[in-house]
Order: sequence, then structure tokens, then C-alpha cells
Amino acid sequence: MPVGGDFDLDGAIRKVPDFPKQGILFYDITSILTSPQAFGYCIDQAQAFCLEARANALAAVEARGFLFAAPLAARLQLPLLLVRKKGKLPGETYRASFTLEYGQDEIEVHKADVKKGQRILLVDDLIATGGTIKAAADLFTAAGVTVTGIFAVVGLSFLSYEKVLEGYEVRTLIQYHGE
Amino acid sequence: MPVGGDFDLDGAIRKVPDFPKQGILFYDITSILTSPQAFGYCIDQAQAFCLEARANALAAVEARGFLFAAPLAARLQLPLLLVRKKGKLPGETYRASFTLEYGQDEIEVHKADVKKGQRILLVDDLIATGGTIKAAADLFTAAGVTVTGIFAVVGLSFLSYEKVLEGYEVRTLIQYHGE
Repeated sequence: MPVGGDFDLDGAIRKVPDFPKQGILFYDITSILTSPQAFGYCIDQAQAFCLEARANALAAVEARGFLFAAPLAARLQLPLLLVRKKGKLPGETYRASFTLEYGQDEIEVHKADVKKGQRILLVDDLIATGGTIKAAADLFTAAGVTVTGIFAVVGLSFLSYEKVLEGYEVRTLIQYHGE
Repeated sequence: MPVGGDFDLDGAIRKVPDFPKQGILFYDITSILTSPQAFGYCIDQAQAFCLEARANALAAVEARGFLFAAPLAARLQLPLLLVRKKGKLPGETYRASFTLEYGQDEIEVHKADVKKGQRILLVDDLIATGGTIKAAADLFTAAGVTVTGIFAVVGLSFLSYEKVLEGYEVRTLIQYHGE
């Protein structure tokens, strides 16, 4: 059973069985985007958390995180930093590697974008194991700025990301507790 | 020499030589995102074009197109459709292949998101040869909806995308006429 707020966000999230592989139920947020009401609800909630966390900059995790962070950045007129997979950012970068189910992956952030005194709200669409967002949060922390909150629309609680992200302030709008 | 509007957008675009390979000058729009003034200007201009084109839906090209389309969708409360690389969208899709400098690539759009009567504004960050956005525009046209405009922040005119996109209404905020 999903646990969410007063808006029927669960009804706006398409569930696709056996994607990307057999036995996995995929929570698809693209169906939120085609509903201006659902999308607006998510941005409003992200904004409330951003203000609570007194963030003065946003960081978006590639690629679906862009969809929720960019409207918030535009609305609140805050700088938006990108967290991208290795090789996508053209400038000098900070890098962090992290472990996936099979193998390793690497994320990068432009060094020039990270500035002293930033209080960063990290934004993604969905937190599963929390591996990527933990790597991003730790990267910013190591670079000397504060990660004041982590926001995602969906949290897959049954994958125990809360434990992985211990020490960070995490807000998700809906949590799924089983497949 | 760049040709743009009254705002100094050129000053907000980082130029990175030899990326992604030797001899290529990369126009980096991530430096727009860290300037709320520059980012706001781009969204305002996209909004003006969207209203002119009387679009009632937006489509964003992965991944940097998400950054400009999502704020516009949120602001105008329009449905946002994603144009993604092969294998990223979980539902049933329309597909189109197109030719890259070396080899072929494929884009997809969720079938369920394409609805009769849509007047779509296609959004990307930068148009180079125009190959990807042409494939997306033709995909929507073939699916029976109208592509009422194509918007990008940057147009690399020296790569002759205007010719490739002939027949579509194209708006870019700044054009570069040589490297």
C-alpha cells in the first residue's frame, strides 16, 4: 500500500510490470507530467520543502530529476546545478563513484558551479536504493557546501534508502512499501 | 559572431573548446541554469513563443530539453510529453530512427501520451544539425498530432538545421554562425 499525502498522487503514477526486466514493477513518473494538476502538486510540495530547508541552490540528478528541479529553480529564482553521468559535463568536474547492483557508476558536478555558502536541495524523481543520491550528497559535502535536504517525488521504502541516506533530511511525497 | 536578442545570453553561455572531441567548440547551457536571470529570460521567451504558436502541449527532448520544457509546462499548466532515447520509456511507444554523424539512433514517445487535437511545442536546449528534433517532429506528425513550433535556446546555424527543419516553425534565442 502506498503512503502519500492528501492528493491522489498514486493515481497519477503509472505502474509498469516487468520493466526494465522481468519481476520488477516500475513506478513511472512520466504520467505525472501529462497531468498539470499532479505536476503542479509535486512542484508546490517541493517548493514548501525547499523553503523549510532554507536552500539557496538546487541540484538535479540526471535525467528525470531535471523535470522537477528545473520548474522549482525557475519559480524560486535559485541557481540550478546538474549532477550528471560521467562524460556529459564539458567543464572541470568533481567526481564520485558508487556501486550499482552490477558494477560501478560515476557522477559529476561542474566545479565552477559549487560555491561557498551554498545550501543545496538535491532533487530527483524517485529514490530506490538511494545509491546515486547518496553519492551526490556526499560529493557536495566533500566539496565544502551544505546539503540541506533531499527531495524526490517517489520513495521505494522497501529498498531501505532511509538507512543509506541517514544523516540527510529526506522528503518524498509518496512511499511504496512493497512491490 | 552570435546573433541574439536584447539580453546578453551569449555572456551566459560557457564555451568549452575540444569537447566532446578535439576541434569542437561546445556551447554549454549549464551556465545559464546557475544564473536565475538568464534562465528566467529563456523561460519567458519560450513562453512567449508557446503562446504565439497556440500550443496546448509541450514535448521535451532528452535530457537537456527537460530543463527548459518542464518550467514552461509547470508555469502554463500544459501537459508535458517526453522524447527519450530507446529503452528508457516503460510503456508502449512510437519509435523513430534517425541518422547520426556515425550510425543510427532511435527515439521514443509514449503512445498513451499522444492525444488527438494536441498542438505540440517541441523543446530542446540546442539545435545542431537538427536530426534528433526533426525525427521527433516527424514522429508526432505521423502520429496524427500537430507540431506547432520548435523551440531551442541555442541554434548552431552553421550546421544548417534551418534546411533540415524546413516546414516547421523554429525559434531559437541565439544563433551562432561559425565556430
